[in-house]
Amino acid sequence: MQKTQLYDAGFSEKGLAKHLVHDSPYFKIINFNFEPGQELPVHSHDVEGQLSITVLEGEGEFLGAEGATQPAHAGDVAVADIAESHGIRANTRMRILVTIAPPV
Amino acid sequence: MQKTQLYDAGFSEKGLAKHLVHDSPYFKIINFNFEPGQELPVHSHDVEGQLSITVLEGEGEFLGAEGATQPAHAGDVAVADIAESHGIRANTRMRILVTIAPPV
Repeated sequence: MQKTQLYDAGFSEKGLAKHLVHDSPYFKIINFNFEPGQELPVHSHDVEGQLSITVLEGEGEFLGAEGATQPAHAGDVAVADIAESHGIRANTRMRILVTIAPPV
Repeated sequence: MQKTQLYDAGFSEKGLAKHLVHDSPYFKIINFNFEPGQELPVHSHDVEGQLSITVLEGEGEFLGAEGATQPAHAGDVAVADIAESHGIRANTRMRILVTIAPPV
């Protein structure tokens, strides 16, 4: 069993901080940490599969196609197809965990 | 995008509370909530794949084969093969999120 402590991972004033937690043929797990105002811009990949976004800390918005937004708070889990537009914007410091299966 | 708020999910005095968050051909996501002393007993499944355990709240121990334990705290992510012995015991109230890929 491989263990990672997400609260040890830092933030960056220069842009969102990306920390690879795990990568295998089964799934990829990435931790993104945002300063207020930083974002993971809306994007999508034209492949099969789904991803989950778990908000560990902070609040902001889930971003979707055509400017759509949904509130994002600690404890929220959002699931989307990888081919569906998705992104995140932070209003406070924010820690999220993204799991992509199968890995892109 | 399908959204679930994990902190809305309850606990049970009778045993660990299991809440299915998502199930698809790509992964299964389950939230388990524990009262102090409750556990997900050590088990394994003889299939390909991996699972992640994210501790959202509380503390306890990750359980492994032959009585092995590792401390589990909020912010920890543990990854194991599905075929590897794994379990969790709670010392405080504890919320965890388990992602299984591919789903068992």
